[in-house]
Amino acid sequence: MVDAGHEVLDLFFAPASVAIVGLSRAAVGGPVSVLTTLRDYGYGGRIHVVNPNMESGPGFRAWARLEDIDDAVDLAIVSVSRERVAAALASCIDKGIGAAIVITQGLADADAAGARLQAEMMALARAGGLRILGPNTIGVANAHARFSSSFIETRHDTVPIGLISQSGLFMMGHNLVTDEPGGFCMSIDLGNACDIGWVEALDYYGRTDAVRVIACHLEAVDDGPTFVETARRVCHDKPVIALKAGRSRAAQAAIASHTGVVAGENRVYEAAFRRAGIVPARNAEELRLLAKAFATYAPPARGRVAVVSYSGGGAILAIDAIEQAGLELAALSEDTRRALAPLFPDWMEVGNPLDVWIAVTRDYHTAFPGILERVLADDNVDAVLCIYCAYSLPKYADFDASLHIPELAAAHPRKPILGWSYGTAIAGFTERVERAGNAMVFPSLEDATGALARMVAWRSRRRCDGRAPTAPPTVDHGAPAAIIAEATRRGRSCLFAEGLAILDACGIELAPWAFAAGEEELLARAAELPYPLCLKVASADIVHKSDSGGVRIDLADRTALVAGYRGLMDEVARRAPDAAIDGVVVQAMATGGHEAMIGARRDATFGPCVALGAGGIHAEIIDDVAVRLAPVGEAEAHEMIEELAFGKILKGARGGAACDVASLVDALMRVAALICRHPEIREVDVNPLIVDASGAVAVDARIILEPPAA
Amino acid sequence: MVDAGHEVLDLFFAPASVAIVGLSRAAVGGPVSVLTTLRDYGYGGRIHVVNPNMESGPGFRAWARLEDIDDAVDLAIVSVSRERVAAALASCIDKGIGAAIVITQGLADADAAGARLQAEMMALARAGGLRILGPNTIGVANAHARFSSSFIETRHDTVPIGLISQSGLFMMGHNLVTDEPGGFCMSIDLGNACDIGWVEALDYYGRTDAVRVIACHLEAVDDGPTFVETARRVCHDKPVIALKAGRSRAAQAAIASHTGVVAGENRVYEAAFRRAGIVPARNAEELRLLAKAFATYAPPARGRVAVVSYSGGGAILAIDAIEQAGLELAALSEDTRRALAPLFPDWMEVGNPLDVWIAVTRDYHTAFPGILERVLADDNVDAVLCIYCAYSLPKYADFDASLHIPELAAAHPRKPILGWSYGTAIAGFTERVERAGNAMVFPSLEDATGALARMVAWRSRRRCDGRAPTAPPTVDHGAPAAIIAEATRRGRSCLFAEGLAILDACGIELAPWAFAAGEEELLARAAELPYPLCLKVASADIVHKSDSGGVRIDLADRTALVAGYRGLMDEVARRAPDAAIDGVVVQAMATGGHEAMIGARRDATFGPCVALGAGGIHAEIIDDVAVRLAPVGEAEAHEMIEELAFGKILKGARGGAACDVASLVDALMRVAALICRHPEIREVDVNPLIVDASGAVAVDARIILEPPAA
Repeated sequence: MVDAGHEVLDLFFAPASVAIVGLSRAAVGGPVSVLTTLRDYGYGGRIHVVNPNMESGPGFRAWARLEDIDDAVDLAIVSVSRERVAAALASCIDKGIGAAIVITQGLADADAAGARLQAEMMALARAGGLRILGPNTIGVANAHARFSSSFIETRHDTVPIGLISQSGLFMMGHNLVTDEPGGFCMSIDLGNACDIGWVEALDYYGRTDAVRVIACHLEAVDDGPTFVETARRVCHDKPVIALKAGRSRAAQAAIASHTGVVAGENRVYEAAFRRAGIVPARNAEELRLLAKAFATYAPPARGRVAVVSYSGGGAILAIDAIEQAGLELAALSEDTRRALAPLFPDWMEVGNPLDVWIAVTRDYHTAFPGILERVLADDNVDAVLCIYCAYSLPKYADFDASLHIPELAAAHPRKPILGWSYGTAIAGFTERVERAGNAMVFPSLEDATGALARMVAWRSRRRCDGRAPTAPPTVDHGAPAAIIAEATRRGRSCLFAEGLAILDACGIELAPWAFAAGEEELLARAAELPYPLCLKVASADIVHKSDSGGVRIDLADRTALVAGYRGLMDEVARRAPDAAIDGVVVQAMATGGHEAMIGARRDATFGPCVALGAGGIHAEIIDDVAVRLAPVGEAEAHEMIEELAFGKILKGARGGAACDVASLVDALMRVAALICRHPEIREVDVNPLIVDASGAVAVDARIILEPPAA
Repeated sequence: MVDAGHEVLDLFFAPASVAIVGLSRAAVGGPVSVLTTLRDYGYGGRIHVVNPNMESGPGFRAWARLEDIDDAVDLAIVSVSRERVAAALASCIDKGIGAAIVITQGLADADAAGARLQAEMMALARAGGLRILGPNTIGVANAHARFSSSFIETRHDTVPIGLISQSGLFMMGHNLVTDEPGGFCMSIDLGNACDIGWVEALDYYGRTDAVRVIACHLEAVDDGPTFVETARRVCHDKPVIALKAGRSRAAQAAIASHTGVVAGENRVYEAAFRRAGIVPARNAEELRLLAKAFATYAPPARGRVAVVSYSGGGAILAIDAIEQAGLELAALSEDTRRALAPLFPDWMEVGNPLDVWIAVTRDYHTAFPGILERVLADDNVDAVLCIYCAYSLPKYADFDASLHIPELAAAHPRKPILGWSYGTAIAGFTERVERAGNAMVFPSLEDATGALARMVAWRSRRRCDGRAPTAPPTVDHGAPAAIIAEATRRGRSCLFAEGLAILDACGIELAPWAFAAGEEELLARAAELPYPLCLKVASADIVHKSDSGGVRIDLADRTALVAGYRGLMDEVARRAPDAAIDGVVVQAMATGGHEAMIGARRDATFGPCVALGAGGIHAEIIDDVAVRLAPVGEAEAHEMIEELAFGKILKGARGGAACDVASLVDALMRVAALICRHPEIREVDVNPLIVDASGAVAVDARIILEPPAA
């Protein structure tokens, strides 16, 4: 499929001949027309237009019907009304065409009738061996082949960025969103992605030399695991930056009617991006800037930043931006400081940040490049944040940093020079700085430091990526499988006592516990457990045990236990009269420590994932939850703990005792492995898990099985 | 002072005559020179240059010494070396000049010698009645007087924004940071602010009709309370937007060497801005955008946004941006939807967001303005977010939204039209949209929705501002004053038992408690308290009671109490042998509820302030703390609770019981009033305060007094 995919996508990106189906005669010569774009873009292939009411014209031949064309056609570009798409595709199949871009809107992006038409269309194409991009797309643009199926002009740009989007906005707009240099050389709008999708597009760019950086506007992916696997492979060599649209619930609903697919929970997408190594962008502007930054600079290994500023006030803002991005203010070496000192007034301390205004006013074209060169040569410096004026008035030519930056950037290709400029002529100035493609002027200091921080993180991730991931703990899954099979046989889906038994069998430490069907068994089992004990009702019909009076805690001795048991059974019988009671779980009380929560569930798009947070309601309200795709390796589990504010508490913040984090990591990996191994499990909820200096002990848990297939 | 200030600042902003002192001959005719700027800017006043080596020239007269000038001089612009500033100012005073801009750097912004020179200079000026702006400033620019003291050209702009900054970066750069329209008509760089400062500048703009919006770049203010009071008054009529530079600790240290002043904790600045009604900006770019937005639009009362987009993908990003900013997606009225329906294909639902591409391709110049007009006229819509193409190519003139937006904005002046555009010609397009000054094109959707949200908040605040603030609870402060006086007399500064007594006297509810000096008194006092009890050592020498073994909890009866007391005294004697022990506090155990923390302290700049968070270490680690200047009114205290994630827990999130928030509000107001009323108090720490459905009860507390003046 992937190997075949390469050839198929060549038909879309560089067809030798195209047939335009559904071109309205009125549009010919008008501004919004595939034909106009193709001709204006300098496409060198053969163009056929299918329209019985048109005559051939300059650069194209017209035909009444597709089957009349006397030429082999690589690609059909279809924009007929939605009712006529299937018939047009049938003609393509008859003609032996292998690829079609369906521009037509109103299919799965619209109503139920549209969804049916899309399904019919796909069935037809599959049977006929026709590959489809779209529907609801403006297709493809490829500067290297001078080919574009967009009905609006695409700028010709050979910057080594490839774009994959789910909206024409990005295919047209990402390239064109500002006047600045930087766009993309190849782009593909997946539209409703009924056939050609994320996996094939990523894989294709991964193997295309002209593309060094991949920018994505992503609303939803279909086959999550294959997407992650493909992106992970591609990401190892080429940075992939992605904007996930539809982070809010309202937008997720709107996506369904934009491209007809269901967008999943944003948090799981974030976990998938992280697993794949995709750099997330927060908005369209950041997507543009990050893609451009990765195409402009070699990512440095560390983030020690020197600030060279025309303005003391600007230098202070730069420090804020550096700290906000989690970068470091470089400590200039003694040598650098000694060498620079003669340029500055006596009363000024030479250090980082460097307020260079007085130093450069004396002899700008020696002083400015001299200072920058010195700072770039310093081994303690990984990148330079440069704040300067961008006055284009001829009288300020003597302060024009754009004359020096590209040259210094070329001399120090491993050290990014990130610019922020103020002045009357940003655009012209920016163009001069960026012309050589080795430096950028950012719209804000925060954009500059943010981009640098992402580059450092990307490089450090790639460095780690070579290491073999720690295997999840090995577990004999026979016992869990037997419990699950038995529960399934009995039609049970909400497992409490069985859930505890499954966790036990997986090697997750539990507060000492036992199941008892009645009072006699209870007393026998309790004899082996340390008081104080607690009791919890075991019933597949009772999800919230406390709400039904099904919990008794702090039972200090045998007498209290018996009284507690009888009270519990009475109250449950009264409050949940219809519930079938299996018995009770009797358990030792866990005291002290911090309450954590481990959850696992099966995401519709990405499959098993696992979450860690503080126990109780706090994690959710404070939004302090770490999510990863399952399984998780040891390093990843540690990373989850690092990510949480709760993690600081576990590690002994502010004089608190440090907990046994290794035990928590082990439990996390085991829960993640459990849900991966047993597809019958829909959800695991271990809450609370008590973590203290001596270990991590699960106190309560619940496992929900998938409902039996209908 | 303020009344006099008006006239004084006129001397700086619109002098009839200036004397330039310290102009180097080499600079004359060069690009970086006050003289060049003044002449090029079209200044109509009289210009004198003081330089014995210069001849008079076109537009200025040269003099060997200041005292030789045969004219009255309103303003001196001084840029001599730092050692010669004092002598130059002495000449100004002799000449009877009332105002001087001191451009010279290297004073308090540099080393100790510079700080001394600045102090001398100020003493001289004060004695001679000379007012100073600076040092370390580029001074003032005023488009309306065509006056600028900057040594770099200032763009002439009459947009009704006034700028106050502490860096030349903003005075030059804010106006010039992009090519887009929008800058400021008046600006002042306070530099080291040794004399003219924030209060006078704000007050001046407040009374200047040409200024409708005030933009501030602020590193540090001097007299915090007067700043807040002035800003609050000015903010009522004119939006004040401020970027606080130096939010990170590293940057705070750098500010000391930039302008020679100490920048306080960022959180307290945020509280001060909030009290004053200042709109905070996160960075330079946001400062520019927010000032421009407030100058462009009338802030709407609500934030129900309609989205009109050329692109379905763009509409989804807009929903994310609307939700992120806390705005609302407007529900279009039935009338609007019915009126628009005929323009859209049958299969497309007409609602918000509106994906208008298909609708506008038919007859753009009727359809686009028609749709926008309909949406603007809808009573359910407060603002429109408009996403369109900005193609400048002549062939796309048929899709040029810039032809319609200014006209529609003029017809609906209460409803902001916020633009985000993509296309090849943003700059030219933006200029056309913004020319009439009633609409803006934003760099990102998030910038647009962020600006709208701030405008809505500003208007709603101004609406509330008229209401009388609820007075803080009245308390008889005689008893606290007596306890403080007695503690001071005894040289005690860390008050525990006295602290509890002070809180008691202020009407803050405490878990029932008593102080006992010895075992006999303990038994007598405990008889009046409900078991279980706890014991805490009372000693001015022991700050962390638990660390010294000075706490016993869960004492169930008299026997346990005695044993606990003896154990406590033994352990404290062993672990803190040098501490003077006053006795113990015996207290009823508070159970259940949520632990909150109220802190109060005296900020060096802004005076008393108060903080609320969850008790224990969680608030700090999770950074879930609300800070306000003291005193706080009832509405403000409620707002603090709203601001916290912990507040959701108190209000009964996820099925938890709702706490008695009114009691917490009352306690907050009382603690805030306490620190305001008693200047001897440096710090109050009530932690924990147990909040449940029946009230808020303080369990532990500490009051620290200011050290006695040396």
